[in-house]
Amino acid sequence: MPANAFYAQSGGVTAVINASAGALIAAAREHPGRIGRLYAGRDGILGALREDLIDTRREPAAAIAALAHTPGAAFGSCRLRLKSPAEDRDRYARLLEVFRAHDIGFFFYNGGNDSAETCLRIARAAHAQGYPLTCIHVPKTVDNDLVGTDCCPGFGSVAKYVATSMREAALDVRSMAATSTSVFVLEVMGRHAGWITAACGLASDARLPLPLVLLLPEVRHDEARMLARVRAEVDRHGYCCVAVSEGLRDADGRFLSETGLHDAFGHAQLGGAGERVAGQLRERLGLKVHFAIADYLQRSARHLASAIDLAHARAVGRGAVAAALRGERGVMIAIERTSDRPYRWRTRTVPLGRVAARERALPRGFISRDGYGITARARAYLSPLVRGESAPPYRDGLPDYVQLRNRPVEPRLAAWTRD
Amino acid sequence: MPANAFYAQSGGVTAVINASAGALIAAAREHPGRIGRLYAGRDGILGALREDLIDTRREPAAAIAALAHTPGAAFGSCRLRLKSPAEDRDRYARLLEVFRAHDIGFFFYNGGNDSAETCLRIARAAHAQGYPLTCIHVPKTVDNDLVGTDCCPGFGSVAKYVATSMREAALDVRSMAATSTSVFVLEVMGRHAGWITAACGLASDARLPLPLVLLLPEVRHDEARMLARVRAEVDRHGYCCVAVSEGLRDADGRFLSETGLHDAFGHAQLGGAGERVAGQLRERLGLKVHFAIADYLQRSARHLASAIDLAHARAVGRGAVAAALRGERGVMIAIERTSDRPYRWRTRTVPLGRVAARERALPRGFISRDGYGITARARAYLSPLVRGESAPPYRDGLPDYVQLRNRPVEPRLAAWTRD
Repeated sequence: MPANAFYAQSGGVTAVINASAGALIAAAREHPGRIGRLYAGRDGILGALREDLIDTRREPAAAIAALAHTPGAAFGSCRLRLKSPAEDRDRYARLLEVFRAHDIGFFFYNGGNDSAETCLRIARAAHAQGYPLTCIHVPKTVDNDLVGTDCCPGFGSVAKYVATSMREAALDVRSMAATSTSVFVLEVMGRHAGWITAACGLASDARLPLPLVLLLPEVRHDEARMLARVRAEVDRHGYCCVAVSEGLRDADGRFLSETGLHDAFGHAQLGGAGERVAGQLRERLGLKVHFAIADYLQRSARHLASAIDLAHARAVGRGAVAAALRGERGVMIAIERTSDRPYRWRTRTVPLGRVAARERALPRGFISRDGYGITARARAYLSPLVRGESAPPYRDGLPDYVQLRNRPVEPRLAAWTRD
Repeated sequence: MPANAFYAQSGGVTAVINASAGALIAAAREHPGRIGRLYAGRDGILGALREDLIDTRREPAAAIAALAHTPGAAFGSCRLRLKSPAEDRDRYARLLEVFRAHDIGFFFYNGGNDSAETCLRIARAAHAQGYPLTCIHVPKTVDNDLVGTDCCPGFGSVAKYVATSMREAALDVRSMAATSTSVFVLEVMGRHAGWITAACGLASDARLPLPLVLLLPEVRHDEARMLARVRAEVDRHGYCCVAVSEGLRDADGRFLSETGLHDAFGHAQLGGAGERVAGQLRERLGLKVHFAIADYLQRSARHLASAIDLAHARAVGRGAVAAALRGERGVMIAIERTSDRPYRWRTRTVPLGRVAARERALPRGFISRDGYGITARARAYLSPLVRGESAPPYRDGLPDYVQLRNRPVEPRLAAWTRD
């Protein structure tokens, strides 16, 4: 009997993480002699700790195929981070106990930085106990901050969403600026790295130039300088659009979203970075300002996914099974770019030791001199990642997303009383 | 020589107002013996007051065709509202002077409630002066609050956008609720009427049921009741999504966005209705809450326009020219629904006197008993309006929106020194 496999989704979701899941499950089904049952963790790694496994065999092939166009995490995800085996001994022991009870020989972990590290630690813990476990990391993060890969599945679709949204909103505010709003502010994700904010810069190009100001988390926020810059754009073009990273920091390195302001009742003010910047523009420049917070919409917008991002997501899912069957262990499936123009890429494997617990920042060479824009190098990198459309099927005018059955596997162990 | 025509865009833009413009211009071009030059007002009616006219003949046919897939207002719009002819004598005199100087015999005004009234007043002012002017109102508003028409071009696309976005965000928060966010709040437009908030209800249907709570501007906000309802949904489903109208009011009828709170420096708190509700949920229920503000993204999202809405927008543009050529005056082109299933519709004309300065509220029969949802009647009305997709062309992964040349017409009068 071949060993069974366990797949779990980890951390914040993306528009295409289910596409990785669907490709991985379909690939595993093609090798019944090598991989037995494929279980998914309900709510990610929590499902393994709780022995709450989902039997993916009970999903029809059509439902697995529909994962390619369904956002969110179809099996549930979680933000639980395992500490080192020394600090979290019980959890590692429990995981291996569950794996053993269900004859699991393959562990596929679909996540970002933290999960790459967890994946590596689980691989080492299994090895230390002499338990045969093939651990493969399947990359996923809208933050695009994993090292060892040219880009992260999930990012291209967010990039396409924020650039499209910014372009559309720019046409809106430009239309109205004569008598109404003249500055539009869009707050986007990316607390530690400015990849998503940088992608907003794609909204403007040679054929449709738009006055954009990007407030990247890599550049300390200088209110007076920002105000002067926006004022100049409004004077010249009549309007201006500002993309604000949720992770924007002031000169002292504090997040703008945590400036310690309190209302009359002593409650901390709720506003995020975008709202702060909108307030500064409104109060200091006396302009009419509107602001939007994209929040979850940006990372769930499967209706506007990038076809390239989708292809990457599916490739890393398939690649994980292929690597496991080749006998590779403790690796991540990475995207390697072999050419910018025309854009060419392939997958390869990278040892998890090179990936885990590291972050890839936006290169300084991607940020324009004044800090408010992106360079040609950034465009050459970003542009291929937003290419191509892959609309989901629609039913009654709305995207027809699949809902899996998620049938549980009968537990074999005593209940786990802690997470 | 046939009389010339003047077309202006008014008020907040929509994803499809340019589709009306493009259809109207193309239809006018088909009748060179009946309609001479077609001028557009730069920044709406302001363009007429300032004698800042755009010569649409100088736009190639391809650019006019591309208006069908370009959001914003291609000629500029404005929020200037003319008062009654008695109060605003100078402006009406100026408008007719400009129309006379440019031989304008047709006035097409593309807007909402206010512009319907202005259109009627201009028609009456021209008639009183014996100036022959055919005034036709072309409906447009995301608020869907014009009377005399089954729906308003622009609304269907917003409805499709907010319902899709809510569905996508619901799959996101559902995925993460085990360890992270369990309530998602989306603030949408519609200060006076809950049409857009109601459309969020389409996100959930029999095939993909989702726990949604709609906070409509028609229903006074009762914090304790809302908290109990959301708590119950979270207890039952593990998560909940809340759509909040920007125009939500408390028991005293005050907008939640204007509750008079001030921070430690005496600044008025900036938060809108969505942020207030998110704060109430966070503080009173102790749940992790995320919120998004769709703002201009919702009314500019041409990438997700409803094909039916687009068809309506084009039909009212073409219909305006047809009505003018039939000799109709002082009318609005309305959408008439002749069947729900299958959805069938046609255009007709409605006298502006029946439309101007009136608002159509969300019918009570569209709101569920508890005030937090929509009824089957509401679904039957809303569902056809979001049907069909009509993606714009893409270039380098982003929608390829057109930028018109907008060449000015040589002025013939002295400059206007006030607006």
